[in-house]
Amino acid sequence: MHVLFLGDLMWIYLLLLCCASCNGRPDPRKRDALIGLEASRRTGGDITLNEREKLLDGKLQKLKQHDMEAGQFPPSMHFFKAKRLIDQSPVFNLIQKMPKGAALHVHDFAMVSVDWLVKNVTYRENCYVCFTDKQTVQFIFSSGPPASSSYCSSWTLLRSLREKIKNTTELDNSFIRNLTLFTEDPDRAYPNQDTVWERFEQVFLVAYGLVTYAPVFKDYLYEGLRQFYEDNIMYVEIRALLPQTYELDGRLNDKDWSMAACQEVVNQFKKHHPDFIGARVIFTVHRKINATEAVKTVEEAMILRRNFPDVMAGFDFVGQEDLGRPLWYFKDALSLPEDKGFNLPYFFHAGETDSQGTDVDQNLMDALLFNTTRIGHGFALARHPVVKEMARKMDVPIEVCPISNQVLKLVSDLRDHPAAVLMAEGHPLVISSDDPAVFGATALSHDFYEAFMGFGGMSFNLGTLKELALNSLRYSTLPSQRKEEAIDALLVKWDKFVWESLL
Amino acid sequence: MHVLFLGDLMWIYLLLLCCASCNGRPDPRKRDALIGLEASRRTGGDITLNEREKLLDGKLQKLKQHDMEAGQFPPSMHFFKAKRLIDQSPVFNLIQKMPKGAALHVHDFAMVSVDWLVKNVTYRENCYVCFTDKQTVQFIFSSGPPASSSYCSSWTLLRSLREKIKNTTELDNSFIRNLTLFTEDPDRAYPNQDTVWERFEQVFLVAYGLVTYAPVFKDYLYEGLRQFYEDNIMYVEIRALLPQTYELDGRLNDKDWSMAACQEVVNQFKKHHPDFIGARVIFTVHRKINATEAVKTVEEAMILRRNFPDVMAGFDFVGQEDLGRPLWYFKDALSLPEDKGFNLPYFFHAGETDSQGTDVDQNLMDALLFNTTRIGHGFALARHPVVKEMARKMDVPIEVCPISNQVLKLVSDLRDHPAAVLMAEGHPLVISSDDPAVFGATALSHDFYEAFMGFGGMSFNLGTLKELALNSLRYSTLPSQRKEEAIDALLVKWDKFVWESLL
Ligand SMILES: [Zn+2]
Ligand SMILES: [Zn+2]
Repeated sequence: MHVLFLGDLMWIYLLLLCCASCNGRPDPRKRDALIGLEASRRTGGDITLNEREKLLDGKLQKLKQHDMEAGQFPPSMHFFKAKRLIDQSPVFNLIQKMPKGAALHVHDFAMVSVDWLVKNVTYRENCYVCFTDKQTVQFIFSSGPPASSSYCSSWTLLRSLREKIKNTTELDNSFIRNLTLFTEDPDRAYPNQDTVWERFEQVFLVAYGLVTYAPVFKDYLYEGLRQFYEDNIMYVEIRALLPQTYELDGRLNDKDWSMAACQEVVNQFKKHHPDFIGARVIFTVHRKINATEAVKTVEEAMILRRNFPDVMAGFDFVGQEDLGRPLWYFKDALSLPEDKGFNLPYFFHAGETDSQGTDVDQNLMDALLFNTTRIGHGFALARHPVVKEMARKMDVPIEVCPISNQVLKLVSDLRDHPAAVLMAEGHPLVISSDDPAVFGATALSHDFYEAFMGFGGMSFNLGTLKELALNSLRYSTLPSQRKEEAIDALLVKWDKFVWESLL
Repeated sequence: MHVLFLGDLMWIYLLLLCCASCNGRPDPRKRDALIGLEASRRTGGDITLNEREKLLDGKLQKLKQHDMEAGQFPPSMHFFKAKRLIDQSPVFNLIQKMPKGAALHVHDFAMVSVDWLVKNVTYRENCYVCFTDKQTVQFIFSSGPPASSSYCSSWTLLRSLREKIKNTTELDNSFIRNLTLFTEDPDRAYPNQDTVWERFEQVFLVAYGLVTYAPVFKDYLYEGLRQFYEDNIMYVEIRALLPQTYELDGRLNDKDWSMAACQEVVNQFKKHHPDFIGARVIFTVHRKINATEAVKTVEEAMILRRNFPDVMAGFDFVGQEDLGRPLWYFKDALSLPEDKGFNLPYFFHAGETDSQGTDVDQNLMDALLFNTTRIGHGFALARHPVVKEMARKMDVPIEVCPISNQVLKLVSDLRDHPAAVLMAEGHPLVISSDDPAVFGATALSHDFYEAFMGFGGMSFNLGTLKELALNSLRYSTLPSQRKEEAIDALLVKWDKFVWESLL
């Protein structure tokens, strides 16, 4: 991470002084110096590549050139249309193989490719389905036929249904469509932010009955870690709603059960994959709750944090920021931990908005005033120069999720994403994927591709990628000893990756 | 224009220091102070409104709220779809009446509403039309039937054609379609930057035969000044290709003729409109020319500048930046004036691109190294932090043309326009309209609306508008004495506008 030194400013002054008083043409050496100065400011701009890395970077620049000149530049297109192109890109192929460190901003029920939910989970015993009047489906596991609800058809045992209709492909595909936002013509399907957010929250309701079934809850998390691990990620921090899970007989488990299950699954996964470092949970709640509910929830968060210090990292709000309550509304609840001398770290989603000068647009500043550890998205940060400087001085990174911001219609051409500005300035940030399963993306590689190509074009290099991977561990909540070990492990993986990519 | 003082940084440090060490909740007074600090940084943020202005600002904020909450927010939509909404907006109505100072970035043949071209110019005597194989039209004035060319049908006298077809509405409408980019479904008609630029340059070819007819050339300029004046603009700087004009008998006039014509028309217009300050010309050439041609053109520019010091302001390149030659390619030609000790001010279009790290992406820096007076567009500036600081220190403004950038597909939602970031920082800039006739926009008011609402949402106020109007004169090439007078005249108009808007 590069900090702006006074020395830089002095250099510019000197160069300008020379330039303003020079006769005739600009000095090419001064021009080169300025270009170099600008390059050094970028994310990873102060990383010195070793000989092997330089070789790989040369190769990478050629591959990038190919993607830049192919006529259709994927980051300029909607991800649903660009995915096919990205999947064929050698740059993407390299990024997939690259150790990417940690994913610090992903949501609990959007981690696992929905194929697994449909092909594995819905094929399990005792899975019932019903069809709602909103043309969506609901699932539930039950030992006997569940009581039907008013907004849904009567429950059908999926196994019987599948036996009846013989060709189950179309049924399974309709489930998949219900569980993702993917569509061929996203601009037509989702004309504005409110419609896409409505469908987005609906998708989670469809998954709800599947993933809150206690045995699936654990398997889901395990499979999620597996898919992230497979995408060369060694550590994950998960925003989790921690809803009640249920057993086959209808018994309900509380948040403690979910936390204990997380801890158990993570430990199990680490045992099977010794180079995986772990996962922690950031407890989240919908930002539509009122002040009284917020106080209760923060108290709950403190108890969870006390009971599960290893796995419970902190607290956050979720949901469409523009329609939710601003952070400042929750000031009493959010001040509780400090008032009681309790350390409850915050990881606020903030600035995930296009609105300027509204109450919600103050969330970025308020997140910092409430001493947030990181900022989710921070899409609006570049428009808040004072907050931006504060964040940089406090070394509070933003978690940039390019595909999420595009699908949820904050920006259409990713070259216009404000993170392009922030990365040019070397602002502290990490790249993450928010809800990869809902967007049809891999755990992290597609977002890395979009950020690398879309925010930097030809100007980013292998150092940028290395810095992004390093940042993801630096800005994790790992305790300092484990953080150092993780970074060392990442660097070993990195060297191996560079070596193998040159073969 | 607000410059970042070290004092500001100190303030932040102090506030942060307090905040980091505070117990319990954030202090609301510190929060207010930070919000105020951020507001003071914005374009116009250090303008103190007088009592009347405060009253009008209160009214304006309410009107803005209405536009923000109307469901469809015009700056988030393509201008061709938003225009109807904007035209009904009381905010737009106010902006139309507002004295806006100068338009510093408009092109010679895109100043006059195409209705005038069709309804007035094509109805003149001796106007011939032909239909090309690209489904466009060409016009020419001629005393007798002109020789036909290979790519076009034979020439038809428009008057005869109109008599023959009786109902001329459809014909006139087809001419209008040929002369603008307007279409109901712009995303379908112009799928990418190259296709829209191709059509864009075609539009100028259609107008060419009309506007280079010597008598029309003068009338066009006069009508252009009239339409800008009517939009409450008091001064214009026109990028002009200065092509040869022709007489009815085919005789050709050179650039000197055009310059003299400009001077004559401007003087005539000023005589009829004493509160109009004037217009100057920036001589432009297409950036596809080669180095030898560039040397000749710069020499030509120097001669024009020597012969017409009052009306000739300087030199610039035009055309799609990505497909043209980078500025650095022209370094020999551009160094000529300095080498000869001649002052030829530059006004380079630069950074009108989404490409990052390409040769063309160096244009912003090179424009400054060649000591440009202003930068046309500077769309990529926020992604170049070193160039941005240089520009600010050199007080070189960018000329932001929101509708142009949207129609030419640099950005789709204007809230994502990088000028939102730059205005939040109080970066030196002016708002202009580039080619309002081709986009179907008013002289400047539609661009002002898009900038005011799209870049600032609820955070901009009447001070922002006042600063933008003042900036347009400050950054004009008016000599200092005339500039001061112009600003004084603007402020008188401004006070009248505020007073009348309160009635
Ligand atoms: Zn999120
Ligand atoms: Zn222009």
